[in-house]
Amino acid sequence: MTSSSTAHPSAAPPARDDRARVNRLRDTIEDNLTTALPAADSTALAPKLIDAMRYSTLAGGKRLRPLLCAATAVAAGGTAEQAIPAGLALEYMHTYSLIHDDLPAMDDDSLRRGKPTCHIVYGEADAILAGDALQALAFETLTNQSCAAATRIKMLKVLSYASGWVGMVGGQSLDLELTGTASVTQAQLERLHAAKTGALLQASTELGALAAEPAEATTVSLCRDIGAKLGLAFQVIDDVLDISQSTETLGKDAGSDAEQGKTTFVDLLGMAGAQDYAHALHETAHQLMRNLPGDTSLLAAVAWDLVFRDH
Amino acid sequence: MTSSSTAHPSAAPPARDDRARVNRLRDTIEDNLTTALPAADSTALAPKLIDAMRYSTLAGGKRLRPLLCAATAVAAGGTAEQAIPAGLALEYMHTYSLIHDDLPAMDDDSLRRGKPTCHIVYGEADAILAGDALQALAFETLTNQSCAAATRIKMLKVLSYASGWVGMVGGQSLDLELTGTASVTQAQLERLHAAKTGALLQASTELGALAAEPAEATTVSLCRDIGAKLGLAFQVIDDVLDISQSTETLGKDAGSDAEQGKTTFVDLLGMAGAQDYAHALHETAHQLMRNLPGDTSLLAAVAWDLVFRDH
Repeated sequence: MTSSSTAHPSAAPPARDDRARVNRLRDTIEDNLTTALPAADSTALAPKLIDAMRYSTLAGGKRLRPLLCAATAVAAGGTAEQAIPAGLALEYMHTYSLIHDDLPAMDDDSLRRGKPTCHIVYGEADAILAGDALQALAFETLTNQSCAAATRIKMLKVLSYASGWVGMVGGQSLDLELTGTASVTQAQLERLHAAKTGALLQASTELGALAAEPAEATTVSLCRDIGAKLGLAFQVIDDVLDISQSTETLGKDAGSDAEQGKTTFVDLLGMAGAQDYAHALHETAHQLMRNLPGDTSLLAAVAWDLVFRDH
Repeated sequence: MTSSSTAHPSAAPPARDDRARVNRLRDTIEDNLTTALPAADSTALAPKLIDAMRYSTLAGGKRLRPLLCAATAVAAGGTAEQAIPAGLALEYMHTYSLIHDDLPAMDDDSLRRGKPTCHIVYGEADAILAGDALQALAFETLTNQSCAAATRIKMLKVLSYASGWVGMVGGQSLDLELTGTASVTQAQLERLHAAKTGALLQASTELGALAAEPAEATTVSLCRDIGAKLGLAFQVIDDVLDISQSTETLGKDAGSDAEQGKTTFVDLLGMAGAQDYAHALHETAHQLMRNLPGDTSLLAAVAWDLVFRDH
């Protein structure tokens, strides 16, 4: 019975053209970030704050969230350009969370994306403030999304839920609480990561769908589900890489999960089991994509890179 | 020539009825905060985070920003009820800024509103996260304001500007940079405080006017100007109180400006000069109120309390 697999082929490595499209899209996002961030010119109120915001945002991230957002907009029947402001908002939100997570009072990391962390360079006070200002900038940027006002309000709701006490920040607090706890179950770990990293990745696909205005409610819901599967797969792979890769390749301290006493998916499932789980989640996301109305090749390529990565 | 002063009487202490209305409004705001904040029940993702959010928000603040917002809505021709969600959003934003400002890496304060600060009770990590979550909650709350979507977008823009790198956070970064600097001018000090505390107070009156939908553009602009005058007056009085009042009355460490090497309006203008300046700003705000279309008695009462206060 190969007909079903022909009708719904499994995920495969991106074609050369799709890879080139992803790279061009990443360049566009990078250019937009560089231009849209405030500049520390002579009229700036607080130049050091702005330097800190630019330093961490422009430190060479993979731009997964804006890529996922823009690629989902295409898959939902819109264009990548429509989703650029939402993508920038997601990247500001993600960067602020990294700055705060790296603080001495939290994970106390000195290295991020191969560079000294924000508080090492600018001091703790301006690192906290740079994170705070990036969060405000994320919401401000989303108010400028070129959609009907009612759609923008929906998008702002999605972003505030994903980043607040039921999402990213709640997940980080739970992570700190469970760190050092001996008997964390898979259900607890999935709940933690669904909030800590999953919520913003899920918001990335949902915002992409909403940006492709007017998207059907079923399309938006499908995109949200795809984001949830990919978000969990992303985290499982993160746990795998923390053990299997060097600090140099990761650009952040390898082996830090074990050192900090954090339970990982590798602890619960073993190395091969964790990889299998991530690949199964990716495959499910891929099958869900087949029901989207637009061209899914870009989204499939971004999803592939999100799972099959080395850092 | 008493005719002009009869047509535009100077600010006077609130009548007994207006004082009672302010107190009732403060009770309504308090009730709304208690109900609207997340509850740390058994289903909560991160109960400690929620406890920290509630602890700092419900620590007995004066609720000046929500009061100013609701009273301005009335003065702009609407009702106080219309401005309650915006008022809650302002209070969440204000509370997050206090939690972060009190951190060891910033002002390192152990006392706020007569109680131990958030990081003393919940630790630095959850204090940082409680602030982060309150900022997200502020934006989320404003998306639920019962106004046309286009008006809500305007309100979200106002709040994000007021709280970000050009407003509150920028002002705090500049404050840290100027602390210990010998020759701060009055112009620098006003620019600092216009951003650090003024922007959110100005947003309070502007959001109040926008909530009184549909408000004329000239009304919104006038309300913004009133907020700017009152915001500066508020800060000048803050500097006066830091010297003239005890720690017990203030509910926070008295004399901390001098101890931390911060330049104040009292340093630049003297005690009497600073008081005169605050009263002149208050009088200007009061004169501007005369051009508003609604009942300004509530706003006048809130403005009076904002300037003639002992803590």
